[in-house]
Amino acid sequence: MSTIADVAARAGVSKATASRALSGGGYVSAGTRERVLAAARELAYVAHSSATSLATGRTFSVGVIVPALGRWFFSELLAGIQEGLFSAGYDMVLYGLQEGSTERERLFGEVLPRRRFDGIIAAGMQPSADEHERLRLVDSPVVTIGAGGEESSTVSIDDAAAARIATEHLIDLGHTDIVFLGGRADAAMHAVGDDRRLDGYRAAMSAAALESGIRHAAGEPSMTGGYDAAVRMLGDRKSRPTAFVAVCDEAAIGGVIAARRLGISVPTELSLVGIDDHEHAEMFALTTVRQQPRMQGMRAVELLRVRMEDPSAAPEHAVMPSELVVRSSTATPRQDARRPRGAERVSGPGPS
Amino acid sequence: MSTIADVAARAGVSKATASRALSGGGYVSAGTRERVLAAARELAYVAHSSATSLATGRTFSVGVIVPALGRWFFSELLAGIQEGLFSAGYDMVLYGLQEGSTERERLFGEVLPRRRFDGIIAAGMQPSADEHERLRLVDSPVVTIGAGGEESSTVSIDDAAAARIATEHLIDLGHTDIVFLGGRADAAMHAVGDDRRLDGYRAAMSAAALESGIRHAAGEPSMTGGYDAAVRMLGDRKSRPTAFVAVCDEAAIGGVIAARRLGISVPTELSLVGIDDHEHAEMFALTTVRQQPRMQGMRAVELLRVRMEDPSAAPEHAVMPSELVVRSSTATPRQDARRPRGAERVSGPGPS
Repeated sequence: MSTIADVAARAGVSKATASRALSGGGYVSAGTRERVLAAARELAYVAHSSATSLATGRTFSVGVIVPALGRWFFSELLAGIQEGLFSAGYDMVLYGLQEGSTERERLFGEVLPRRRFDGIIAAGMQPSADEHERLRLVDSPVVTIGAGGEESSTVSIDDAAAARIATEHLIDLGHTDIVFLGGRADAAMHAVGDDRRLDGYRAAMSAAALESGIRHAAGEPSMTGGYDAAVRMLGDRKSRPTAFVAVCDEAAIGGVIAARRLGISVPTELSLVGIDDHEHAEMFALTTVRQQPRMQGMRAVELLRVRMEDPSAAPEHAVMPSELVVRSSTATPRQDARRPRGAERVSGPGPS
Repeated sequence: MSTIADVAARAGVSKATASRALSGGGYVSAGTRERVLAAARELAYVAHSSATSLATGRTFSVGVIVPALGRWFFSELLAGIQEGLFSAGYDMVLYGLQEGSTERERLFGEVLPRRRFDGIIAAGMQPSADEHERLRLVDSPVVTIGAGGEESSTVSIDDAAAARIATEHLIDLGHTDIVFLGGRADAAMHAVGDDRRLDGYRAAMSAAALESGIRHAAGEPSMTGGYDAAVRMLGDRKSRPTAFVAVCDEAAIGGVIAARRLGISVPTELSLVGIDDHEHAEMFALTTVRQQPRMQGMRAVELLRVRMEDPSAAPEHAVMPSELVVRSSTATPRQDARRPRGAERVSGPGPS
């Protein structure tokens, strides 16, 4: 098999120049590059990535860390990251390892400090286990998606704003008895984005003088989690709200299914609004606040490339837009379910 | 930063021996290994993967090729592959690239021939574009999941048997008007597993003398695909079957949702059975034939490790078990919908 020395000799350039021409890293004149590529073709030279890597100091691979492979959000995110990296010539080395697992601990303790990546993208990182701190010690540029550190570039939506928009939509329709559906009770520790959504709901309720009606039906941010939490809350007529703001579309869809099981009509008797615009949102006619994880993944690759080219570039914080998409899971509450709003609400809820 | 030469000098061994001791590849006595590791610790030596790779000829990375990142089956498969590879010390370099895309073409045409992997796992490979042929030219052991080549090791379920089991369950309950739901009309070209499932359904219908009732409501093998195909078939009372065998659980769940929308009661008026045991199957009370993609992924890593250790080992073909899981989406057809079976069916269908 031909070596890079053979290619360099045939093209009449140094090995370093041949390497630069083949890898695309560093300056080579167009004519020289053409000559090296022609020589490589003639010799049927195939670059060994390890050799290219030693010669250029680059590995052409990016480490990508996510907590789960099965959830819609991360699947879409990965599709965007894959598209961005592949078209730029980078391999995606994926670590889909759950927070708190021994594998995750080994990734941060042993694998990342030894493995050389040109860059790292980490999504859904949580404050626990000092993972942000440990990522800072790795000698590669880092981009985080979702709640991030200050020193890395970040991509996120404004989670609080998304939940506020969802809640305000229900308040505008006349709802006062609105419950936040899904999201773990200890989200502040383990799911910063979910916690910010809960904050956004609380802020919207408070701004409408509905503080005393703030309620959280906690559960995993998944279809089954939303289903279970909704069944618990809808089962008892006395505690049944007129509307749910869900932590994500999957939880909202779980709520729709729970309502159908219990014979509660959506939206006549119950309104639901989600956050995501999940691929199944339309099939369930779900009103939701759209975020586009695939675009977030592509944006993360763009920010990473900036820092890979120039490690001294200042970190950027991209806040992606989110917008309300109204479908038919939300409506004005039924007259007999509507309650007086504002100050009267505080003096004691009851049918108007 | 210390180099491997520094480590070798301090341990009093050759660079090659130090490299073997650090990488774990090739024979080194226990005492020597201890001395090298101690020297590496003292010098805070961190192996550069590229250098390790050149010294040992191994990259400790496995290329993984799937057609989609968002579908449940592939997410679960990847979770199993990730678990197996990570615990064995291999990186997973993921290519989630759709069949027929220009990126996919570039993967097979340019990336795989240049990139060195210790092994490759390819899932959901289809006969088009000669991809099996091109994988054979890559100088790494290969394991395929799903329809595979003869020369690589393979992991799969018996797709025809899975659909036959599902169809026989409905026939045993007394159904004769059973439609196959979902799967592309040209599956033979593009989705071999789906095509084998259709074959299994046809075989079971024929064995029960129901050939003339064989019908296929084609559609994408997804929730929305199953929904659309079911709406078309259920909308017209005359063409409405008493049961669906779905190409996968996602299509079956789409069928359940379509039935609910149209006010058709499951299972009283319509029975549905899927294939997968998807994470949402239980929530929809779906009867299904279980396959376990996560276990398939782990099994693929086991088969790959055998061939990475010994490239001359004969390929193995692992057929994973599948079993019927009866929930409440299937029941005896309503009396007014039941039709005579067997020979009478051929002479002309009609209410009994």
